[in-house]
Amino acid sequence: MPTYKLTLEYDGTKFHGWQLQHKLRTVQAEVQKALAVLLRQDIQIQVAGRTDAGVHALGQVASFRCEQEVVAEVARRSLNGILPHDVVVKNVELVSDDFHPRFCAAARQYLYVLTRSPLAVYRHYAFFCKFALDFERMQRACPALLGEHDFRAFCEAGTDDLHFLSRVDYAAWEEQGERYLFRIRANRFLRSMVRIIVGTMIDIGRGRMEPESVAEILTRRERRRAGFTAPAVGLFLEKVFYDADS
Amino acid sequence: MPTYKLTLEYDGTKFHGWQLQHKLRTVQAEVQKALAVLLRQDIQIQVAGRTDAGVHALGQVASFRCEQEVVAEVARRSLNGILPHDVVVKNVELVSDDFHPRFCAAARQYLYVLTRSPLAVYRHYAFFCKFALDFERMQRACPALLGEHDFRAFCEAGTDDLHFLSRVDYAAWEEQGERYLFRIRANRFLRSMVRIIVGTMIDIGRGRMEPESVAEILTRRERRRAGFTAPAVGLFLEKVFYDADS
Repeated sequence: MPTYKLTLEYDGTKFHGWQLQHKLRTVQAEVQKALAVLLRQDIQIQVAGRTDAGVHALGQVASFRCEQEVVAEVARRSLNGILPHDVVVKNVELVSDDFHPRFCAAARQYLYVLTRSPLAVYRHYAFFCKFALDFERMQRACPALLGEHDFRAFCEAGTDDLHFLSRVDYAAWEEQGERYLFRIRANRFLRSMVRIIVGTMIDIGRGRMEPESVAEILTRRERRRAGFTAPAVGLFLEKVFYDADS
Repeated sequence: MPTYKLTLEYDGTKFHGWQLQHKLRTVQAEVQKALAVLLRQDIQIQVAGRTDAGVHALGQVASFRCEQEVVAEVARRSLNGILPHDVVVKNVELVSDDFHPRFCAAARQYLYVLTRSPLAVYRHYAFFCKFALDFERMQRACPALLGEHDFRAFCEAGTDDLHFLSRVDYAAWEEQGERYLFRIRANRFLRSMVRIIVGTMIDIGRGRMEPESVAEILTRRERRRAGFTAPAVGLFLEKVFYDADS
């Protein structure tokens, strides 16, 4: 059966996250419903990374198989006509049968947007941090994240992860006017990992913690040593990388 | 009585425009309500430019007088605590008694955001134009707008404007990835003027009209010769300029 890769953008504001949940509005449910309308059959989709309630995606990747072959560009346009306005299919692509969006992914990249002044426009896409932040301290806290570490301290309880290892190959803050942008790329992410890292960075930026403490928190592996969980509103799954990607 | 200048940002999505309307949610009503709570007196505000339903503002300017003097920064923070999330006070400033946001304004600048691919995130802040557009043609159509002209052809019927003259001193398109941004600065704007100019530019970009026709439309002064009224969703009142501004 032909396998298709979907690249999705969604606004997480009004979703209870990605995964199907009884009686709750989720992205997976909306996409499967739209596919069922288009293809006249029940479709199960796989996903690169389940996002939590309120988290946005600019480049989520999902896949599905169906009995007939479809014209990718026609499917993309039709799905966008069927889907609600807060989910958009950016791309549809025929891929090889052994493609799996989660298992084949080489890395995932998340973006977190902080704003230092309150916003009306774009308020659903940034976390307004009312504390004075020292940007340079937050930058200095980044290198300690790089490489392979046990991220147990940066993981929400109640996870079903088998282990806590993650290999981070990019982590940096960028200043863009009133906005501070944090990007992190890793081979895998644990539950709430980016949000806890950002919460910790905010504590560092406020002067409540030292930039050097990131390494210590990693070594101690205790959730209580890390900072708070930054709100979902500022978080975007930006891109999923596959080995074929340039 | 001390006079204060307010700089406001708002998300026009859920407002019936700026101006007070019986039983409808408007920006003016929300700001006046918040001022009444803060200052414990009825406050009337003046504005630089009334925006229509759905139009956003990044730098709207309003003013009010009140009996007591207030600490500007405290007033700003307090108002942001009282106001709904889709209106933010960016700045409060004590100004001279003869300040009037409309009459003293030297120029206003609007921004229109087009997107060439459908959006989920940010969809309330850009107009998705599904037609193929020739950017270079749209750019070529801009210079004809510069200078003082009778903009009757780019004005919605039912206006209460005394005359149709406007002096445009900036008008240009900018390409930013999938987005096309149009900025226009003029001493005054007529009802729906920016949206009709953008609608005309889209017709030009699609090849249904020539870039040279802008000059002709201005000369003929007939609304029917110009293009459609582009949707409010992409329009932002970006800035109001006063002579004291650098």
